[in-house]
Formats: sequence, C-alpha cells, structure tokens
Amino acid sequence: MNDFFSELVKGLEPYVPGEQPKNKKYIKLNTNENPYPPSPEVIKAIREAANEDLRLYPDPECEDLRKTVSDCYGMKHKQIFVGNGSDEVLAFSFGAFFAGKKIFFPDITYSFYPVYAGLFNVAYEEIPLNKDFEIDAADYFKADGGIIIPNPNAPTSKYLDTNKIEEILKSNSKNVVIIDEAYIDFGGNTCISLLNQYANLLVIHTLSKARSLAGLRVGFAFGSEELISGLDRIKNSFNSYTLDRVALAGAVAALKDDSYFQETKKKIIQTRERTIQALKALNFIVMDSKSNFIFISHKKLEAEFIFKKLRDRGILIRFFNKPRINNFMRVTIGTDREMQVFIKALEKII
Amino acid sequence: MNDFFSELVKGLEPYVPGEQPKNKKYIKLNTNENPYPPSPEVIKAIREAANEDLRLYPDPECEDLRKTVSDCYGMKHKQIFVGNGSDEVLAFSFGAFFAGKKIFFPDITYSFYPVYAGLFNVAYEEIPLNKDFEIDAADYFKADGGIIIPNPNAPTSKYLDTNKIEEILKSNSKNVVIIDEAYIDFGGNTCISLLNQYANLLVIHTLSKARSLAGLRVGFAFGSEELISGLDRIKNSFNSYTLDRVALAGAVAALKDDSYFQETKKKIIQTRERTIQALKALNFIVMDSKSNFIFISHKKLEAEFIFKKLRDRGILIRFFNKPRINNFMRVTIGTDREMQVFIKALEKII
Repeated sequence: MNDFFSELVKGLEPYVPGEQPKNKKYIKLNTNENPYPPSPEVIKAIREAANEDLRLYPDPECEDLRKTVSDCYGMKHKQIFVGNGSDEVLAFSFGAFFAGKKIFFPDITYSFYPVYAGLFNVAYEEIPLNKDFEIDAADYFKADGGIIIPNPNAPTSKYLDTNKIEEILKSNSKNVVIIDEAYIDFGGNTCISLLNQYANLLVIHTLSKARSLAGLRVGFAFGSEELISGLDRIKNSFNSYTLDRVALAGAVAALKDDSYFQETKKKIIQTRERTIQALKALNFIVMDSKSNFIFISHKKLEAEFIFKKLRDRGILIRFFNKPRINNFMRVTIGTDREMQVFIKALEKII
Repeated sequence: MNDFFSELVKGLEPYVPGEQPKNKKYIKLNTNENPYPPSPEVIKAIREAANEDLRLYPDPECEDLRKTVSDCYGMKHKQIFVGNGSDEVLAFSFGAFFAGKKIFFPDITYSFYPVYAGLFNVAYEEIPLNKDFEIDAADYFKADGGIIIPNPNAPTSKYLDTNKIEEILKSNSKNVVIIDEAYIDFGGNTCISLLNQYANLLVIHTLSKARSLAGLRVGFAFGSEELISGLDRIKNSFNSYTLDRVALAGAVAALKDDSYFQETKKKIIQTRERTIQALKALNFIVMDSKSNFIFISHKKLEAEFIFKKLRDRGILIRFFNKPRINNFMRVTIGTDREMQVFIKALEKII
C-alpha cells in the first residue's frame, strides 16, 4: 500500500455498500430504501430552503431540527444529537464511547460495526445469534465492554422485545449500550422510553427508511445529556457543520408530517405480510420480520443461484457471502406491484 | 468528565466556530461567507433535485460531481475526492496520512488543525510565522513529518507564491504536503498545476467561499490517484454517503456557472481594495490580502475594544484572543453597502 498512508488507513477494511445502479432499469430491493416518495411537505420545504441564505453556514447546533425531534418523541432537545445519516452518528458513537475499549455485537449484524471499530481502535467480540438467528439477551449480561445491537437486527429482520433490552441495560450499567433502531418503525416498539431510567442507553434513528429520505442523509441519537455531549465533542472535533441547510429543512418537514409517515409505514407492513405468504407458498423459509425487508432462504434452491437469476431479470436483492447466512437473501419490501413482479420472477426461476 | 467517555473524547479540545446568530439584525462579517447569493443555477438545480428520488441513497462515488470538478480543473476524476465541506475532507486527510505520525503547520493558522490532530493521534509542531506574519518556505524544508498550509493563510489573509510551495514540496518528497486553498479564488493562483509533478501534494478546495455555498457543505481534494484512494478508504470506514442528493446537484450547478463565479469574485476583490484604502485612511494597519477577508489592527485603539464597539452597533467581526494576534481583527468582505456601514461605524468609534 501507498507509502504516504498512515498505519490507521492501511489497517482499515472499508464497508461496501449495496449497489446503487446509475440507471433505473432495475427493481431495487437491495438497500432497504422506502418504495414511496418522501412526504410532499419535505419536497416543499427543500424547495423553499433553496434560497440565497445558502451563502451562509447552517446552524452548527441544528436547534430547529433538534427541537422538532424532541417535540416528536417527548424528550429534551439536549438529549438529541443529529448527524449526516445514522452512519455518521454511529461512527461518532464508536469514537465517543468505545475508542481504545471493547465492544460486543452479534456475529450476524450490520457489517459497518467492525469497520467503525477499525477506525477508532476498538476491540470487538462477535456474539453468535442462537440457532433461530435470534439475539439471546443473556449472552450480553455483564459484558466486559460496550454493546451495540440493531433492533430489529439486520439482515435477519428479527425484533427483540423491550423487556429483553431492559435486562441487557440493567446488567451493563457501567457500559454504553447502543440500540440501533434504523428499522424500528415497521412494527417494533422503540426503547426511547427507557432513556429516563438508564443512563447507559443510546438509541439511534434514521430518516432513511420509514421517512423515505435515504437521499437526504439525516440520523439522530437519543440519550442522556451527558452522552449527547460526548457525541458533540467528537463532532466538533471533526466537522462543525455536518448537516446542510437543505437537509435540515427537509428533516424538520418530514418529522412534522406524521399522517404521511403512518400511512406509508402501514402500506409497507401490509405488503410485507402479503409477500411473506406468497413466499411461503413457494417453499421459502421466511424469518419473522418487523422491518421493511425480509430474510429468506429456499428449501431446495441455493440463495446465490436465485440472487443471480433475479438479477438477470432486472431485480436486485442482497446476498451476503458470509458464514451461516450464505444460503439466505435479504429482500427489501417495495410497492405491491414490485413485489408481484418479484414473486412472478421467483415462480419462473423455481 | 463522564465515566462512559472514551479516553479519546476526554482528551479532545473541540473547535469553536464563529458565531451564527439566529436573527438577521447583524451585519455578519465574522465567518468569511460570501455576501452574494449562490448562482441562480444552483437554486434551480436544488429545486429540481427535491423530488421523489430522495427516497434513494445518493451515489456513494459522487461520480457526476467528480466528473464536473475534473472537467472544471482539467484533472482525471479519480484524482478528485469530495466531502461534506472541506472540514470533512481535512479531517479525513489527517486520518489517512498523518494518524500516529507528526505534522507541521504555522503557529497562526486555521484553528481546526490542532483539533483534527487530537482526533487522529497526530503529534504536531507549530512553526512561527515570520515577523511580517508571513510563511517562510525555508522553515518547512526537510520537515520530519507532514505539512499543512492554508494558502492564502487564515486569519492573516497572506498569500504564498506557487514557486515557494514548490520548494516545500521538493524538499519533503517523503511526506504529504496539504495546501488548503479555501480562499484561493480571491486573487491567488491555485497549485493544482503542480499535482502532476509532486505525488506528495494534496490540494483542498471548498464551495463555501467563492461559490457562496457555505450552507450546502461541499469540499474537494485534488491529488494523485493513490492519495485519493487513501481518503476513500477513510470515508468508506466512516460514512458511505457523506453528500446528499441535493448538495450533489447544487455543487454540479455551481461549478458549471463560471461566469457568475467570475463576476462575484471580481466584485469582492474590488470591494476589498476600496475597503483597504478607507481603513488605511483611518490609521489601520492592513495586511496584504488575497482573500475574501482582511486582517487589521489599529495604530492606537485596541482590537478587542473595536470588536466590542462594532458588536454594539450590530456589526460582527472576528477577534482571536491568542498570542501575537490579540490586537488584530479579521473582517470578512461584505457588499459595498455593508462595508460602507462598517467604515462609518469605525469612524464613529474612533
């Protein structure tokens, strides 16, 4: 590797995001985007924010957005941190709470976690999911370091009950426990309500999934004022202005349009349940999902074979060539129409 | 400090950006923003990008924007890195090239540099500007580590000739030399042309100043394909999608509207020269400026006194309470009208 590189950069194994094809010929069920557009109020707010004030720096404190989030979730605005997508919030969290220490997460989970660990010199230990691909809360009791768990987990789509999370929080009072709730809105219950009892809890949300704003890059963390101040310290040592004026305006509008949000979520959940029924009829094993995606395996055909055949037919899904899950596929829930095309394609492949 | 914090976050001394007042009662000459709005083409492009595609992730490779930059500056697009403001590009650069090593920069310079050093475990040594507040190139020959120099320097506004930069590059072939050209468009010559000869050179630009887009958060780095790949490695270990769809569209439009850019720059340079003449008539010492700001000191009155008096009159400038420069003020060049108000206020204060 290049002589100019630092040892840090030499040692990294960067994350590889799902494919983002430049043309639109594909039905995109590979990166868990929302098939519905963002609220019309978001479009309107962004168009209004496209004005001469773009010459001025944005508010580095993101006060308006943080107040909107706090109104939405009934928290103090000092308990909220906002970042350039939840990926940035996660990166800052690794720096603020785990740098030079140790962290635990499931063996099958969001594959960016070990990458953040590499960036901030965090030792990590993967805790295997049980045989049903579930998180066993007891495996995390008295962990010798921090913990990060996505709920629902990705790519398994499985949800862990709030009382199980509470047990983990109770038994790890000296360490930060992050619950990454990127997919919480598709049928799970957020554990934000636990924040007032557990000073070690940090909850992370994103506007990329249920709010249809993957293209705007906005994520949040909820925690005690102290934990939030740690994230602020890292952010203000990295980039004072991580959210542009347009993203700030769009995010505020997205959070204020609750009825659009409820409606979109409901449609996706309904489509998910219909899709699951159709897949089971085709001999697929489908994990219980509380997400906007499903994790499936066929009883006879190999996942990689199906993945490739779908691609040939213009349908992108996600296949992970990794131990334990290399016979599974992760499929984002699209519109009813898209899922019908997907099911028909599977019928032909099978 | 909080028990949950990592040693890293405990040790940081975060950057403090210039004040961003929430109301508009002030004439803002404190954060080097452009007094003119961005190109109308930018506004148009952002409004068009505010569409249903916001549900989709942006292009993580930022190909369109990188191609536009490469057309603009006559480089290969693989020689270009784009980030969420030049502050993010700078942070990634510290991680990619200097983490665990050493870096040299002027004693009076952009005060974010020591902060990045703290974040990425970089030892740093400040090299004093000479008695005229200039960078003496010879002070940087055979440095035992990397180098970062803003050109023009901030807050001094002074410019270093390209041939001096070339001498520094030649005498430090084993280490990365970053030239931070945030203010280069206001009268200096970019050293991008040196890139083909010096593999150790990285040049950093921003759209925040001459392109009037501080509110959109877009910065670039220019370097060899190898150096750019180092920045990519850090970025892809931190956040795959640092620029949202709207910022990408606005940035492309800004770079394509060259005539608006030339016109705005010219107006600012003319206003700067007129302002300098008026200040000299009021007994101010004014450093030679090739920036959109000036660095001034009064022969009789103290800088802090003037700073406070101006604030009382609704005019914000920047005062740094630091050794060597605590009798200076940094003043952004606004519109002709704003600078007339500024000069009149000074006449009354004096």
